[in-house]
Amino acid sequence: MSDVRTEHDSLGPHEVPADAYWGVHTARAFTNFPISGTPVGAHRELVAALGAVKLAAARANHDLGLLDDRRYDAIAAAAEEVRTGVLDDQFVVDVIQGGAGTSTNMNANEVIANRALELLGLPRGSYDEIHPLDHVNRCQSTNDVYPTAVRLALVAGIVRLAASTTALADAFAAKAAQFRTIPKIGRTQLQDAVPMTVGQELGAYAVTLREELARLADSRTLLCEVNLGATAIGTGITAHPDYPTRAVAHLAEIVGRPVVGADDLVEATSDTGAFVQVSGVLKRVVVKASKICNDLRLLSSGPQAGLGELQLPARQAGSSIMPGKVNPVIPEMVNQVAFWVIGNDVTVTMAAEGGQLQLNAFQPVICHGLLQGFAWTTAAFDSLREHCVDGIGVDAAKLAAAVAGNAGLATALTPLLGYARSAEIAKAALTGVADVRALALATERVDVATLDALLHPEHLANLARPGS
Amino acid sequence: MSDVRTEHDSLGPHEVPADAYWGVHTARAFTNFPISGTPVGAHRELVAALGAVKLAAARANHDLGLLDDRRYDAIAAAAEEVRTGVLDDQFVVDVIQGGAGTSTNMNANEVIANRALELLGLPRGSYDEIHPLDHVNRCQSTNDVYPTAVRLALVAGIVRLAASTTALADAFAAKAAQFRTIPKIGRTQLQDAVPMTVGQELGAYAVTLREELARLADSRTLLCEVNLGATAIGTGITAHPDYPTRAVAHLAEIVGRPVVGADDLVEATSDTGAFVQVSGVLKRVVVKASKICNDLRLLSSGPQAGLGELQLPARQAGSSIMPGKVNPVIPEMVNQVAFWVIGNDVTVTMAAEGGQLQLNAFQPVICHGLLQGFAWTTAAFDSLREHCVDGIGVDAAKLAAAVAGNAGLATALTPLLGYARSAEIAKAALTGVADVRALALATERVDVATLDALLHPEHLANLARPGS
Amino acid sequence: MSDVRTEHDSLGPHEVPADAYWGVHTARAFTNFPISGTPVGAHRELVAALGAVKLAAARANHDLGLLDDRRYDAIAAAAEEVRTGVLDDQFVVDVIQGGAGTSTNMNANEVIANRALELLGLPRGSYDEIHPLDHVNRCQSTNDVYPTAVRLALVAGIVRLAASTTALADAFAAKAAQFRTIPKIGRTQLQDAVPMTVGQELGAYAVTLREELARLADSRTLLCEVNLGATAIGTGITAHPDYPTRAVAHLAEIVGRPVVGADDLVEATSDTGAFVQVSGVLKRVVVKASKICNDLRLLSSGPQAGLGELQLPARQAGSSIMPGKVNPVIPEMVNQVAFWVIGNDVTVTMAAEGGQLQLNAFQPVICHGLLQGFAWTTAAFDSLREHCVDGIGVDAAKLAAAVAGNAGLATALTPLLGYARSAEIAKAALTGVADVRALALATERVDVATLDALLHPEHLANLARPGS
Amino acid sequence: MSDVRTEHDSLGPHEVPADAYWGVHTARAFTNFPISGTPVGAHRELVAALGAVKLAAARANHDLGLLDDRRYDAIAAAAEEVRTGVLDDQFVVDVIQGGAGTSTNMNANEVIANRALELLGLPRGSYDEIHPLDHVNRCQSTNDVYPTAVRLALVAGIVRLAASTTALADAFAAKAAQFRTIPKIGRTQLQDAVPMTVGQELGAYAVTLREELARLADSRTLLCEVNLGATAIGTGITAHPDYPTRAVAHLAEIVGRPVVGADDLVEATSDTGAFVQVSGVLKRVVVKASKICNDLRLLSSGPQAGLGELQLPARQAGSSIMPGKVNPVIPEMVNQVAFWVIGNDVTVTMAAEGGQLQLNAFQPVICHGLLQGFAWTTAAFDSLREHCVDGIGVDAAKLAAAVAGNAGLATALTPLLGYARSAEIAKAALTGVADVRALALATERVDVATLDALLHPEHLANLARPGS
Repeated sequence: MSDVRTEHDSLGPHEVPADAYWGVHTARAFTNFPISGTPVGAHRELVAALGAVKLAAARANHDLGLLDDRRYDAIAAAAEEVRTGVLDDQFVVDVIQGGAGTSTNMNANEVIANRALELLGLPRGSYDEIHPLDHVNRCQSTNDVYPTAVRLALVAGIVRLAASTTALADAFAAKAAQFRTIPKIGRTQLQDAVPMTVGQELGAYAVTLREELARLADSRTLLCEVNLGATAIGTGITAHPDYPTRAVAHLAEIVGRPVVGADDLVEATSDTGAFVQVSGVLKRVVVKASKICNDLRLLSSGPQAGLGELQLPARQAGSSIMPGKVNPVIPEMVNQVAFWVIGNDVTVTMAAEGGQLQLNAFQPVICHGLLQGFAWTTAAFDSLREHCVDGIGVDAAKLAAAVAGNAGLATALTPLLGYARSAEIAKAALTGVADVRALALATERVDVATLDALLHPEHLANLARPGS
Repeated sequence: MSDVRTEHDSLGPHEVPADAYWGVHTARAFTNFPISGTPVGAHRELVAALGAVKLAAARANHDLGLLDDRRYDAIAAAAEEVRTGVLDDQFVVDVIQGGAGTSTNMNANEVIANRALELLGLPRGSYDEIHPLDHVNRCQSTNDVYPTAVRLALVAGIVRLAASTTALADAFAAKAAQFRTIPKIGRTQLQDAVPMTVGQELGAYAVTLREELARLADSRTLLCEVNLGATAIGTGITAHPDYPTRAVAHLAEIVGRPVVGADDLVEATSDTGAFVQVSGVLKRVVVKASKICNDLRLLSSGPQAGLGELQLPARQAGSSIMPGKVNPVIPEMVNQVAFWVIGNDVTVTMAAEGGQLQLNAFQPVICHGLLQGFAWTTAAFDSLREHCVDGIGVDAAKLAAAVAGNAGLATALTPLLGYARSAEIAKAALTGVADVRALALATERVDVATLDALLHPEHLANLARPGS
Repeated sequence: MSDVRTEHDSLGPHEVPADAYWGVHTARAFTNFPISGTPVGAHRELVAALGAVKLAAARANHDLGLLDDRRYDAIAAAAEEVRTGVLDDQFVVDVIQGGAGTSTNMNANEVIANRALELLGLPRGSYDEIHPLDHVNRCQSTNDVYPTAVRLALVAGIVRLAASTTALADAFAAKAAQFRTIPKIGRTQLQDAVPMTVGQELGAYAVTLREELARLADSRTLLCEVNLGATAIGTGITAHPDYPTRAVAHLAEIVGRPVVGADDLVEATSDTGAFVQVSGVLKRVVVKASKICNDLRLLSSGPQAGLGELQLPARQAGSSIMPGKVNPVIPEMVNQVAFWVIGNDVTVTMAAEGGQLQLNAFQPVICHGLLQGFAWTTAAFDSLREHCVDGIGVDAAKLAAAVAGNAGLATALTPLLGYARSAEIAKAALTGVADVRALALATERVDVATLDALLHPEHLANLARPGS
Repeated sequence: MSDVRTEHDSLGPHEVPADAYWGVHTARAFTNFPISGTPVGAHRELVAALGAVKLAAARANHDLGLLDDRRYDAIAAAAEEVRTGVLDDQFVVDVIQGGAGTSTNMNANEVIANRALELLGLPRGSYDEIHPLDHVNRCQSTNDVYPTAVRLALVAGIVRLAASTTALADAFAAKAAQFRTIPKIGRTQLQDAVPMTVGQELGAYAVTLREELARLADSRTLLCEVNLGATAIGTGITAHPDYPTRAVAHLAEIVGRPVVGADDLVEATSDTGAFVQVSGVLKRVVVKASKICNDLRLLSSGPQAGLGELQLPARQAGSSIMPGKVNPVIPEMVNQVAFWVIGNDVTVTMAAEGGQLQLNAFQPVICHGLLQGFAWTTAAFDSLREHCVDGIGVDAAKLAAAVAGNAGLATALTPLLGYARSAEIAKAALTGVADVRALALATERVDVATLDALLHPEHLANLARPGS
């Protein structure tokens, strides 16, 4: 038996491995795009979404009498296998590809056709029986199938990131509760400002991350609006008039999400605004995470010649030369993921801007950039939570002492003494002659009880305020 | 009478022009930041918002007995003048400034104090009577006043852009209605695809721009959540406990928008996520506009050796060397505004990521970048509408002929003849032997009536579909 | 026999697979950074460079009596294996990692130590005999080893890209020669301008790409300046005074490149300017390539309703719905690679900007971004040359006719007739009443012979000019 | 006398102010591009360069007999006035403009024509005598004049930035000399590493900035290669064959720089690679400056709860709420300029990538972005030097004590005691039981004299090394 079979397309004959489910188009694309070495099959969510779309299309075609029972059963079974991940290794086309996703769609069409043929007991390549285009791709175009699949893949990515973000926010919230009343000096512009608590600082990280959940949910909704049924440019050419409605309804049921069809399919086919939007949302998530990790690295700097306020768990020896050194490697990793995702946002932006007329040819790089960004961010957040945040410690005594001696306490005096006199106290405190409390008492304009109430750490931090 | 007066702050004495409303802090900042040459006063919306915030604060302080009637009246009157624009020329600090906005806030405090003094018949600099800090800035910090003002300024910018976007979308929609049934060849990947109408193409621009209105409205809502009352780091130090609620309520009334206070003021004071979000939204707007302008330039290319489908109104002679040449200068300008705004998004992103601990010191560059972006985009959209879109013309006869002769019509045959046979017809049509209609008839697998119905431009474009 | 062995470091014991050459540090890092799924070993040039650096260090240590013959022989042999690629699968740490490259360096130290132990017939983990730090890493720190290796890896990437760029430029030059005299209309701002030849257009691509070779060569030189011997922060702590000179000399010999030591090792250890520079150079390369591919797609648009000037070789069927359609998939792929690389430049920029004090902790993401960028660009250029440029064709007759009828010829008349009168001729020609030649003759201000000489395509294109 | 005069172009009549030197084209462009409010005249270097190019062109045309003495004298005198700045206020077109610079070139042509007419005693608009196109623009096109002028303007910007960078580097070097032997703890990844001196740290800033001078000089050279004589698309159409050589020679003489003509004028006319390159160079400069300012802010953090190693000069009161607070406002300003310039680099990149076929229509935004970037960076560096670096102070005693007590000294012991035992000493030192020196002596493996030599700050910092 030969190791190869020969397939034909409009460019002529081409050999493919005899046991490959993919066919001539995939083979040509494989040769054309030897760029990243990462096959489409590496994006599980994308392959799953392709399977779901192909299954939905097959059901709609079967409903409309465009696909007979025998073909439908075989195609539906093969599409379901694509959806569940059995055939991921057959999606061999490079993630960086020309053709607006045609090669990915054709890879799916060919894999499903040949697997369906196999299920019918027919040899691969018997396209008279089940044809990648006339049957599997019936009523479809890459230009509606591919963006629909990308959107659903991104929804899956968003769902996972939201779970990871929730867990990370919860971890910060737990630490905030643990350190709720431990005073520390707050800083603005890296200069000593006024007192707060460690709980307030870490609690703000929880709050700011939780805000992202609403943005992620908004994006999920936007992405659930698809152009399935648009076919080539949105006019629905070659598709049965009832196909769009049915296909979208099947798709919604298959993926279990509120998938709806776009109102203007011409607009929906050329527009990549949703991808720009979701890229912006992801960028905001990582900007916040990067800021938090910058803070964690700063607050844990030292151990002796740094701020030394937080202790991060030691994860690995820090240096190949300096014994005993331990570095904040997990936050550093998160920073780098953030920089990467921010770079990807520029890529997505340029690709979106570069789309022309009725289709954006650059959707594959948008797809890869976004799916990669969601996957990396999710992994980074899981690592940050498990390997860093859950183990954060503080030295409460040291922090309290630092607050008591800080000249920034003078701010609390301004409503009593005015800005100018408070400034004098602050200046004096910095010289070390006495601390703010003693200097304030020396003015004889405030009594001890008032002052001690005013300078009590929990008062300064306003912990009694609702929400604190 | 001297031309200068001498003011003092914690750094010592400093001369300021005798007639300036601004004082010592502004003078020092003016010297420190000779960067862009653009003063804060150039951002009308920002100065208006500062006036509104200062007025709201004065009202709250007056309510709470922290400001007597005489001072309140004078400060409120001065703040109102700042709000309405009378004193814009007194906001002389450079838009690019260190200090997290302190210099902008102090510029406002000083202008209001000295104008209030003047209203009371007192000389400038009589800060014992009305002090920029102890009275005008009472219960406030730059760290809540400045971001609150920036947010409100951006809301104003959004409102204006939304109006401009609506008008631009309407202009495209009017053209779409005008050219609703004029057939043309749709293109994917710059290659001839299948027929559509000019109305569908231009109508998609209207639709895609109108989608932005919802995103802009979302942003407006997010920006209306402010941290007023947070003072230095969110703990509300030095502010009366009832101040935040009252100040926010007054502010909402003054600006006539649903301004609300943030739940966690510590988070709200350090977080710049809203600015990243609104920058992303603005970026998406310009990405769409740039894509549209790329299309307009492409579709109007020629006049002889280009696509030549659209005629843009001639706005100026196009060349200093080529007589008669007219260029698409308005869309080219829009493209450049888009590139600029996309660059600003990177600036905003880096500034947001670089914030540390309890405050982001880089808010001034975020503020300038965003306000500039909104202003330029609004101006560009107005010019695009008035000077370009409103005057777009087409040559309907030429377009119709191009459709009739295009090999892409073969796509419409695939449901009847299958992909492979249709491909043969397309190939033959490209050789010029006959057109698709004639070739299809020659197969004797389709009758004239069916074919003519199938190939009717309005059928091909699916104009009967709801929403088309 | 057990499947695992237990190693110890300052954090305690940790199991590693018994047959792994890597040890405890690598194991911890593998757990800490489950981000991209791409191991360091995927960057062949980086592993090769690490092997070279470790070999150079071992030679220097041996020269200086810091390593005995037995250990040196074993370590050198193991390092050479790392260099040549035998042990790539042992570099399992993720490319996205915290720790400024420590995990990559330790992965190398552990692999070399254990392979050296094996060569001595000793069991893995016998670190009393050969220790990853005390012997393999002697006189070294991650902070000099890692950036040195990254630089050399980039030099290798540059060399390959330069070869690929040269070949691509040659391919354009060959096409330029083939189409040297074929006239066409040049376009500015997408509007018809004045005549030129296809050879001039394609020849400009060759010229512009060749310019990159000098920039790449400059970068190569900058990258050959290394900080080996700097150890932790540039002060050379723990290194023998003669070590830097010797190590660098050995390294230069091993890699066969003019590697030199930096003058100020403190500066060289914290500075990542060379990476920003090389990223900028790579960005410029892809910006040019993207512009060229935009042109190729535009010039080959059609086949009927586009510019249709160039025919690109058909590489794969273009559409899953439109029979016969062929798309410019190779240029589209190159555009996407360009967008990706431009995004990576932002990543590199942010990572470089974010470095603090004596070391940039974010070098791993810089390294990955740049190595990926060089690899993808090289692959894209090879595909572009082989699958597209080499097969470009034109329809000379069609192009010549388009030139003869174009109103842009009026420009050539301006020195004779002035701008205003020439503009009238251009306008008339556009109405179709007559062509420029006939209209010019009708002015009776120019004779036939003069005019025909003036309007001869080769004259218009100025082919006689040296360099054309 | 009327306030307006009426001019005509191919679009018809248009009124312009009677006293304006600019004419109809400028008037139309002014209406078309109401975007930034910044006129071209705000870029002094650009107007100067335009004057120089127009003067060079006039000289060449006069040499070649294309311009008579009378007209030449008037045009040359007017161009010289443009060059020297007398007519800056006549360059009213917005910096953000469509048309690839045509409006800027026409603004120059019109101003020079009308000023020349005035010098001849003729009324403005008497274009039969001196025509903006036929005389002032003779042998020229926007497409060679404008990019040539932009390049020369950038050269001027580079020269000024180089001077500013040199002065800033010198300021750091002076401080480095002042603090040459003051020990401090070096930090990697924000964790205590090993000792160095303040002089080494600040000296590295001097070194890294001085490296930029070579890059700036390289850019200057690249920019001096111009396409003057290319006219519309590089074929030199309408230009006298000897014009390019003569015009370039005159230009070199006028500006006093080694200006040369490009070899391939077709390539040189469409290519914007030099702008991408110079943008990358400028980006690298600001990345370094931003890193330095991040360090300055970090090292001066405190005054009590921060690193507190450097004292930056107080430039303005730091807070509107916290008395006595002083912030690092100058470095913060520099950071923001850096973020802005990095954003501009993305703008420049997109504009360069978006150029099509024989001309890049987006050069105006490239020009504005780069000229602005150079101007802002120069201003920022001057302020940083004068207002910050020159006044940096340190507390030497505090720094020395911090070094003596730091566990990081254990690194110096590794060559004597090995990594593992040194790590134990470091760990013990961190508990506070004793310092590294005492713990090392307790091992009895090192004598006092050896240890004290080893731990001497100047030895640890390796100050004896050449170059330190």
